[in-house]
This record gives sequence, C-alpha cells and structure tokens, in this order.
Amino acid sequence: TRACVESLNYDDWESAVFLEHEKMLTHGYQIRLAVFKWLLMGLVGVSTAIVGAIAHMLIHTIVDFKFSLIKTYVDFCMVDQCMFWLPPLIWILFNCTFVFVASWFTTFVEPATSGSGIPPVKCYLNGIKMPGFVRIRTLFIKVLGIVCSVSGGLAVGKEGPMIHTGAIVASGIAQGLGMRRGSLKGYMDSLRDDKNRREFVAAGGAAGVASAFGTPLGGVLFSIEEGISWWNPTLVWQIFLCAMLAALFLHNLLSLYITKKWQKVMEAVGVAAVTALVGYGLSYSVNICYTSQQPADNFVPSVGKLNSENGSASVPENLVKLDDLTSGHASPYAQMFCPNGSYNAIAAMFFQSAEENVNHWQHGHMGSQFQVGSSFLPSSLVQSGGDLLELGHGKMFFPGKYSLIGAAAHLGGVVRMTLSLTLILVEATSNVKFGLPIMLTLMVAKIVGDHFNKGIYDLHIELEGVPVLNWSPPALLHCVKSRHVMSKPVVTLPPVVKLSNLVETLATCSHHGFPVVEPGTKGLFGKFLGLISWSQLLVLMQKKAFREVMEEGAHLPLSVFKDAYPCHGTVDVGYAFKDFWRHFSHVFISFQKRMFSSKELSYTLDLQPYLNPAPNTVSPEESFPRAYQLFRGLGLRHLVVIDSSQVVGMITRKDLARVT
Amino acid sequence: TRACVESLNYDDWESAVFLEHEKMLTHGYQIRLAVFKWLLMGLVGVSTAIVGAIAHMLIHTIVDFKFSLIKTYVDFCMVDQCMFWLPPLIWILFNCTFVFVASWFTTFVEPATSGSGIPPVKCYLNGIKMPGFVRIRTLFIKVLGIVCSVSGGLAVGKEGPMIHTGAIVASGIAQGLGMRRGSLKGYMDSLRDDKNRREFVAAGGAAGVASAFGTPLGGVLFSIEEGISWWNPTLVWQIFLCAMLAALFLHNLLSLYITKKWQKVMEAVGVAAVTALVGYGLSYSVNICYTSQQPADNFVPSVGKLNSENGSASVPENLVKLDDLTSGHASPYAQMFCPNGSYNAIAAMFFQSAEENVNHWQHGHMGSQFQVGSSFLPSSLVQSGGDLLELGHGKMFFPGKYSLIGAAAHLGGVVRMTLSLTLILVEATSNVKFGLPIMLTLMVAKIVGDHFNKGIYDLHIELEGVPVLNWSPPALLHCVKSRHVMSKPVVTLPPVVKLSNLVETLATCSHHGFPVVEPGTKGLFGKFLGLISWSQLLVLMQKKAFREVMEEGAHLPLSVFKDAYPCHGTVDVGYAFKDFWRHFSHVFISFQKRMFSSKELSYTLDLQPYLNPAPNTVSPEESFPRAYQLFRGLGLRHLVVIDSSQVVGMITRKDLARVT
Ligand SMILES: Nc1ncnc2c1ncn2[C@@H]1O[C@H](COP(=O)(O)OP(=O)(O)OP(=O)(O)O)[C@@H](O)[C@H]1O
Ligand SMILES: Nc1ncnc2c1ncn2[C@@H]1O[C@H](COP(=O)(O)OP(=O)(O)OP(=O)(O)O)[C@@H](O)[C@H]1O
Ligand SMILES: [Mg+2]
Ligand SMILES: [Mg+2]
Repeated sequence: TRACVESLNYDDWESAVFLEHEKMLTHGYQIRLAVFKWLLMGLVGVSTAIVGAIAHMLIHTIVDFKFSLIKTYVDFCMVDQCMFWLPPLIWILFNCTFVFVASWFTTFVEPATSGSGIPPVKCYLNGIKMPGFVRIRTLFIKVLGIVCSVSGGLAVGKEGPMIHTGAIVASGIAQGLGMRRGSLKGYMDSLRDDKNRREFVAAGGAAGVASAFGTPLGGVLFSIEEGISWWNPTLVWQIFLCAMLAALFLHNLLSLYITKKWQKVMEAVGVAAVTALVGYGLSYSVNICYTSQQPADNFVPSVGKLNSENGSASVPENLVKLDDLTSGHASPYAQMFCPNGSYNAIAAMFFQSAEENVNHWQHGHMGSQFQVGSSFLPSSLVQSGGDLLELGHGKMFFPGKYSLIGAAAHLGGVVRMTLSLTLILVEATSNVKFGLPIMLTLMVAKIVGDHFNKGIYDLHIELEGVPVLNWSPPALLHCVKSRHVMSKPVVTLPPVVKLSNLVETLATCSHHGFPVVEPGTKGLFGKFLGLISWSQLLVLMQKKAFREVMEEGAHLPLSVFKDAYPCHGTVDVGYAFKDFWRHFSHVFISFQKRMFSSKELSYTLDLQPYLNPAPNTVSPEESFPRAYQLFRGLGLRHLVVIDSSQVVGMITRKDLARVT
Repeated sequence: TRACVESLNYDDWESAVFLEHEKMLTHGYQIRLAVFKWLLMGLVGVSTAIVGAIAHMLIHTIVDFKFSLIKTYVDFCMVDQCMFWLPPLIWILFNCTFVFVASWFTTFVEPATSGSGIPPVKCYLNGIKMPGFVRIRTLFIKVLGIVCSVSGGLAVGKEGPMIHTGAIVASGIAQGLGMRRGSLKGYMDSLRDDKNRREFVAAGGAAGVASAFGTPLGGVLFSIEEGISWWNPTLVWQIFLCAMLAALFLHNLLSLYITKKWQKVMEAVGVAAVTALVGYGLSYSVNICYTSQQPADNFVPSVGKLNSENGSASVPENLVKLDDLTSGHASPYAQMFCPNGSYNAIAAMFFQSAEENVNHWQHGHMGSQFQVGSSFLPSSLVQSGGDLLELGHGKMFFPGKYSLIGAAAHLGGVVRMTLSLTLILVEATSNVKFGLPIMLTLMVAKIVGDHFNKGIYDLHIELEGVPVLNWSPPALLHCVKSRHVMSKPVVTLPPVVKLSNLVETLATCSHHGFPVVEPGTKGLFGKFLGLISWSQLLVLMQKKAFREVMEEGAHLPLSVFKDAYPCHGTVDVGYAFKDFWRHFSHVFISFQKRMFSSKELSYTLDLQPYLNPAPNTVSPEESFPRAYQLFRGLGLRHLVVIDSSQVVGMITRKDLARVT
C-alpha cells in the first residue's frame, strides 16, 4: 500500500500560466470568491448533517425492527418455554447477517472504508492522501458499513465514520462535483488545489465531529489540533460555520424523524438507564428493576441532569439537546422482564445496542471503550482521585461525575487527542466546570499512555507505514545536514523535452516532482529553472501540447490543469491517466503505442510556462531540523537542494520521516 | 519610537559554537530540561497570581477606606445639610489624587506602562519587542498605576494590565533572574533565547487572562490566537498548566484575604446589584430600593445564578467562583439612602467603583465599555436579535441573557479577539450553552466592525508604527518578487574583520544582521558564508575576543552569549552596551577611544565560529507571498536574498510590512 500514498502540496504553484491568470483577477473577484467559499463551507455542514441523519434513521429503523422481532419471540417463549434457545438464536442470526454484510463490503469492495476513518483524516490534514480516501464510493460503503455493524450489535460508534463521511463530503464539494458549469466554474476552479481542499476536509472533519457528538466547538478544535501548522482565524471561522450548521441541521432533521412528544418520556428513561448502567453496572446483577421517574430525581448524574434542567438558562439549548433526541429513542426495549413502568438496566446494556446506551450519556468515540471506561473502571479508584480534586462537596457518590472522569481518562489513554477531546466532553456534558478536571485527567492519561505506546490512531497510521511528520523534528540533530537526508542523483528534465525522452524518464522512476534545469556540462546540471510536477506532465501529454503543433508562444490555460485536478496517482483522473498509471512500468510500451504516434514521439514539450520558477529550496549545508521545519511549516511536497545554483538533491516527506 | 522597536528571532542559530555545545548534551539532559521548563511554567503561573493578588488587595484596601470616609461624611451631612457639596468634594479630591499619581508615573517615569498592556503583548507574540516592555520597573509602575487608577474610580479594569504583568513576570523568569547559578545555570542558559522567551511570554499572557477573568482555558486560547504561527501541543499544555495555576492560586490567596463567612452574603448582594444594574439601569432613577434576598429568587439573571446554584454539580467550582470572591466584597457601600437590609442600585453604580460592579457579573476587558454594553444598549434591539435566535423559551425578558449578548457584541466590536473572547465569556459565565450565540454575535460584530476600522488594540499598534505581520500576505501579489521588496546594497562583513572596520560599519548603519561573505572581485561579493547578528558582534567586541590575543582555534563558548542575552538595542545589556547604543552615531568616536586602545583597533575578529552558516534564504525570483510566508511561518528576523551564491539583498520584517 505504501507506494500508493501520496503527498499534498500546500504551497502556491507560481508558474507563468498561474501568474497570467492572476493578472486577470480583480479584488472584486477575490471578495466574491471569499463569499462563495463561505457558502460552500455552509453547504459542507448541511450535507454532512444530511448524510449523518440518513445513517441515523436507517440504524434506528433496523434496530427497531430487530428488537420488536426479539420481543415478539420473548413474549412467545414466556409461554412456550423456548426462552433459552429461540430468542438468542434469532438475535445471533440477525446480528451475524448484518455484521457479515458490513464486513464483506469493507473488506472486498472498498478496503479504504475499514477502521474508524479517523486515521486517514489525520493523515490528510498532515499532508498525505491515502488511496481511495475521498472517493464517493467510499462514502456509500462507509455509510452502509456503519449502518450494518451498529444494527448488528457490534460495539462500535458512528463517530469515527461520521468524521470520515464529513471529510469525503467536503472533499467532493471542494472538487466542485456538479458545480463546475456556467459562471460558477471560475470560482470553483480557484478552489481546486490541495490547499483549499485540505481546508475543506478540515471543515468536513469538524462537521463530522459536530454531527456525531453535537459539539461544534469541539469539532473546530479537532480540526485545528490535527491540521495545526497552517491555520488562520478566517479558516477557523469557516470551519466553525460548517460545524455549527452540521449540528443544527442534524438536530432538526432528527426532530422531524422522532415525534416531539416522545422526547420528554425518553429523556427521563434514557437518563434512568444510564444512571443504572453507571451506578449499578458493577454489581453484574441481571435483573435490577426501577421505575422510570424516580431516578430522575434522586440518582441522575449531575452531568445528564443539566441538559433537562437548565432549560430557561440555555440559549441554544435545542442544539445541545441533540443527545437526548438521538438516543432517548431506545427506551421500550429495556423493559424486558420488568413490570410495566419500570425498566431493566442490564437488559438495556445488552439488548439496546451498545451505541444507544452509551450515546445517550455521551457520544463516546468508540462505544465499547467508553462503556468500559464508564461502568467497569473500579469506582473506588476513581473516587479517591476525585477526593484529591476536592470533588464531592459533602455528598459522597455521584456516579455521573466519577464515570465522566473515568471515561475521559480511558478515552484519553486510547486516542490521546487531548485538546479537542476536552472541548468535546465539556460541550457534550454542557458544563464548563468539568473543563479543568477533564483536561487534567487527559493530561495524565496522555503522559502515562505515551510512556508505553502511541495513541490508537497513530498506531494505525504507523502500521500503514504512512510518512506522517510530527510537530517538530527530533531533538539534538542540528549537526545532521540536508545533504545527509537528500536523495541523489536527481532525476531532472530540460526546459524543452522530447516526448520520447519524457516517456522514458517517467517510465523509469516514480517520482512526482522534477527539477527543470538547463543542459549542463561535464556531468553537472545547468542553471536551475524551476520545478515541474508529475501531474502537470501527464496533462501536457494527454492534451498533446507539443511545441510543433501549437502556435508560437501559446500555452495551455490554467483551466486545463484545474479540470484535471486532482491528478493524484491512481484516482479521479479519467480513463487514460488511470490506465497510464496502472500499466506504468510493465506494459508501458503498449500504452505508448496506443496513445502516441511515432511522429508525436519525436515532438517536444515546452515546460517553461508551467513550471514553478522559484520553489522553496535549501542549501546542502542547511540543517535537517531547519529543512524539516520549512517542509512541515509551509506544507511543501518537494524541497530542492541547491548548491551554487546547481541542483544537487531532492528532499521529500519520506526522506524526513525516515530520519524521525 | 519606531527606531527602538526590534524584532525577535524564533529560529535556531546553528553556529559552530552552538553545534559544539549541542554535541555535549545527552538525551537525559533534554528530558531534565523539559521537566525544568514545566516547573518554570508553573512558577510563572504562581508568580502572576501573587502579583495579581497584591494588586487586588491594595485596590480593595484603598476603596474600602475611600467609601468608609464618604459614608462617614454622608451620615454626618444627613444631619448637617451639607449633602450637596461636602461628600462630592471629598469624593472628587480623593479620586483626583489617585488618578494624578497614576498619570504622573505612567507618563513621566515609564511610558511603556501606558495603555492596557495588551498591544505590546500582541506585538511580542507577533515577533516584535517594544522598548521597556518587559523591564522589571515596568512591572512595578504597572501595578502602581492600576491600583491608583482603579481606586481613583476610573472606568478601567485590571484585565489588560494583568495580561501585561503576566508577560513581564514570565519574561523575567525565562531570563533566569536570580536563578542562573550552580547546576541550574546550564538549564537556564538553554532557555535563554527568543524562542523560549516568547513561549514564556505566551504562558504569562495566558496566566494574566486566567487571573483576571478566572478563565484558564480562555487564557490558553488568547495566547494561541495571538501567537498562532508557532504553536504545538506540548506548548499548549505548558501554557495551560501555567494559566491553571495562576487561576487557582489567585483564588486561594483571595480566600485568605476575604473571610469565608462574608462570602455567602456578598454573593447574594452582588447578584442583586448586578440584577438591578442590568434590569433597571435604563430607567435612570436615582433611588430604587430592594431587599437583598428577593431578587436572587425572581430577577437574578440566569447567567449569574448558575455560579451559586450548580454547587454540587461543579467539580472545580471554587475556581469559577473566583468572580464571587473578588467582587462580592463591595456590597456595604450600596446601601446609601436605603433602609437597612435593602440596597441602592444606582448608588452602587456610581459609588461602588465601576470595576467592582462589572467584575462581579463578568470581568469585562474594559470596565466602561462593558458597562455600556450591558446596561445602556437599547434592550429592544437586543431582544429582537434574541427572538431571532429563538431565545426566551416562553418567558419574555431575561436581562442577564440579553445583556450578555449585548456585552459580547460590544466587546467583540471593540477588541475583535473573537476566538479567545468566546471561550473567556463562556468560561466566566460557566455555561457552555452560551458558546454558540456568543460566537455568532462576535462573528457579526467582527464583520461589521472590520468594515469600518481595525480593533482597538490593532489601532494602538498601528499608531505606534509597529511593523506587525498579518496572518497572510495580501492577495493577488504573486507577481511581486523578492527582488522588489529587498534592500540593497547589502552591508556585509568579511569572515575575519579588522576591529576598526567593524566599528566603522556599525557606526554607519543600524542594521541588526550582517551577511558574512568572502572577499569578492569586480564589485561583487564573494561566496556567502552565513549570517552574524549585531548582538553577537557586540559581545565579541566587549569580550575583546581578538584573534591576536586568543589561542589558535579557540573561541568564546556559548555561555558568554547566553550571559549577554537579551542583547536587544536599548535594554538589559549592562552599562557598556547601553552606552554603546545610546551614543551610537553621535559620540561614537569618544566611546571608541574609551573602550579600545589604538593597538586593539588594528586587531581582527574571527566571525566564523559564531555565524549561522545556513540561514533560510530566498532567491530574488521567489515571489513576495512565498517570502512572506517563510518569514512569518518560521518566525525569522532576517532573510538573505541570494542569487547564484551571491548575496544580492536583505529582507526584514519592515520590508514585508511596508508592502502590506
Ligand atoms: N526528481 C527526483 N530525483 C531524484 N530523487 C527524487 C526525485 N523526486 C523524489 N525523489 C526521491 O525519491 C524518494 C521517493 O520519493 P517519492 O517518490 O515519494 O516522491 P514523490 O512521489 O515526488 O512524493 P510523494 O510520493 O510524497 O508524493 C525520496 O527519497 C525522494 O527524495
Ligand atoms: N545588512 C544589511 N544590509 C543592508 N540592508 C539591511 C541590512 N539589514 C537590514 N537591512 C535593511 O534595513 C532596513 C531596516 O532594517 P532594520 O534595521 O530594521 O533591520 P534590523 O534592525 O536588522 O531588524 P529589526 O529592526 O526588525 O530587528 C530594512 O529595509 C532592511 O531590509
Ligand atoms: Mg511517491
Ligand atoms: Mg532595526
């Protein structure tokens, strides 16, 4: 898989073609473009919410059906004495079918959808595109997979997938799917580059968090924490708009789905179920019954209580109430074996689908871990920690508070996303006063966890062999110079290249950037003229922009390159390119024969209008940490090493990641 | 003033001396250094809290005295019919004296203390050091000034000054005041550079926010928002630790000061006073009386209520209750003209010192504006805005809620610090549900405000002519190249320079960085060897590190340069340097005569061990936006423009700011 991973370029490509295009732009256009981008950001939020709502409704419909089915058989078996095999069998069959469907699709149809979806989003924001990550097909299978696996009773949440879904939606919109026509085309084209797309993916990720947890601010911080090195306040506001719309829309869509009057009852029941889970879960008893109203007064964790209490004080309360809406729904199934009007806590835990139980109290990142964190963590341990923090205030046991801390510690230890997790938890519990203890807990969890291994998402990323760049270069390496990490000899191209030579060069290496140099002497390269990218070369070849057939001084306009964007290795580039890549080294000759006549093979391409004449460069004596910071801080893809205007080496992400 | 503004360098200075030093460091040392830095960060927080507590106690003692004085005279005049001239006269005299003292000290003794102190902190985090900004004397006069002006009844808050105070404390600690001895010296020296100092100043600013508003998370975001281009998660955690300790310590110190039993009463009274201010302020009546308990049940703004209500639910509640503690104190003065047990709202507004009134409900950035925002903003206007947001929920008028929105809008319009302000307001009101409307309000306020002018701090900065660099370069300027903005001809130095020549060079220009080049031919410079800074040259001259008197191959160790740090233009560099700078162009000859013998003037200095051999450079064809991003993103001070290993120009912050 490693060969398919590609880097993104966050830098401007200041070719002559680009500058010519920029000269035609006015400041009025810039303003309209900015407005347009804001609108698109809003669209991303709304679309993410719609996808999320659809997934949610599907899950609920299926789970509804599943439990009414099992309830029927339970009632039937009460009479018929088949209790010990029939309902469990149906339950197992039902679940297995759905889990099988989910597994089959993710494994065989689109492997990019496996896992939570957070690692590829993290990679993308770090500057690496995983194969298939933002394809539309990935979106469909992701939604299918999550619907089936949650309905099938797997202890997974739809949170990670929602983040991935948001990213796919955003990427599609940034690419201008279906919008690149008429007067919109110009605006869309201006947004078609890695930089803007990465900003949209960040917004999409935030929208995903917002619609999964109902926490727009937490979503914003998630994107910032993962894509930190290149943010600015305008972008943060755009991401915020996107996340806020996602949360609002999801809420309203679900309100339409779930009838209003159910809400109040379910809220109380849900709170009761959670209370039971948290407070009594440790007893492992199978048959604890309680009535639905009483716990709401006595045992309700203060966390959950706030939602329903502070009605008049809360301004966008309906937004935060998302939690109640999306999960209170589950109550009827928890009645099992209990008299009417009271509910079975442990039954709820097993039969109610982990996702619903847990979501109610807190949309945990990963259902199962959250559940473990909240109910199985030895409460004595947590409590002693709580005493230290001067919790309690006279009363001795608040299951909600301690299990919130326990859950935070557990989650923090697993995902290590400390900053955004704090805000997500604070926002989800609607209580800013938990901010400090949560942050302290997460800090300790991270320090302790980092002592042993990396976070779960970072481990995933490491397993895939993705060259992610950390915040800062390793310490004490100032004596390592650029020349120690650079690749040489460099594969270069002349400013005017013969097609047959170009084809041969591309066939013999898999690089994505080539320094263009004047013909040199004595084994040295000539003057460095600029950098040309692999994707630009592909476009030039496909458009057959030969010097011999074009007018003197003419060149392809910028829009041709925008049309071909994103021209990454394996995807999205239309048949010819895909084919080109697939047959790269093996059947290249046949491809070549099919595409170009032998006359065309002797034609030349003029690269000068398209190359980036002054990319960021380093000297071979510049230290490794400096090159690292340059590369990471400015989001580069290629760094040309130049010694006295002589190209001597090439540094890419992989070279830097290797040293780390 | 402009000449005194100096830039900071956030980059590593990888001279041979530095590399030699680094070779001696082990990874164990790195870890100990990291721990030491964490401890220092904590120390910054605690120290800031102590300074804040002292200022607070002084203010309260003086205000206590002032009002007991006036109350005495009011009681006396009730009988004596001197009501219309004696108490006002005493009030005016008292206030004028204090305001005069404050004005005199800030104007004549240390002008750097004038203003809120936020603009210089912003500048510092942007990479510019204002003269006198972090001097210890500034700290004392700042505290004196704020005590006197608040006691004098000026409508100012101690929030801005607290931020400045935190920055000064942090800078002093980072510099190692009193700690550079024994085994600590090595660690302290490792932290003595612009990069670490800027991180400490960021932490100090956050601690200032935290101790002014009681909002550690808001403080963290303040520092991030202002110093954004160079943060990373570790730093954020350190800042958080610092801010949290500041808030906690300030709270505990004030608890010691104010007896516990007063707290409960004052809380209720304070809430009542605020309620009156907000709800009835518009009526302009002078004599509204109410009893102290009733409003707490009926009219208390939900905002204020939360603090006292959610006691059992709040974990670090004592932290957030800071508000109550620091301001509830003021109640007795508000009784004026009312029967015992009830209090005068409007008297409170005038006599209670604006700071106390306003602080109670919300530690506003600038007392007066906040007050205007909360009480004088037409409530009908705010309410219609509220209706749009679906506020209200059946009840029609919540003064607290609307005035919070109004105040947020007003504050946002004035300061335009949107992200951190949101978190500060949310944290101060302890209600995360206000996050969204506040953020929306601030967004609108910023958009509308930016349409007319800049924010107040940015205006201050602009008036001072400080070359602050914005987030991103102006749009549509890719056709501007580095050669268009660079300075030429460049003042360079040879690798081995004769003292008399060096002295002459320094006397004829005021640059702070000099490219070192090999002797050239035909009016061209020779090979570029590296960059040497003005402060290094000063150290070399002061230490008389002549080649002729030092052993072959010997050079000054790194610690000598660390001792001299910060070697900025006018300050902190010991007598000789200060003198050197002051007499720069005028009396240079006399200085020169005093310091060097004529024999020494013919000696030479070897610059090679000290220069930075491979700083970031650009080619003259690299575009202006690219150079800008490089400069801003990596926090550089000098950018050398190189064409074919030939130095052709110099770009500094001022060159970039000029184009903007
Ligand atoms: N034009 C080139 N000439 C020589 N070596 C190169 C060139 N481009 C890249 N390399 C080197 O080849 C190795 C693999 O680079 P890689 O193929 O990943 O670059 P890329 O494909 O251009 O970038 P990426 O895959 O990250 O998008 C790296 O060590 C890199 O330094
Ligand atoms: N060595 C140099 N030779 C020629 N011009 C220079 C040199 N250094 C700086 N300049 C130019 O002088 C002008 C003023 O620069 P300035 O004196 O502010 O630089 P500096 O003092 O080194 O940096 P700062 O004042 O920001 O710390 C700028 O236009 C800059 O480009
Ligand atoms: Mg590659
Ligand atoms: Mg200067």
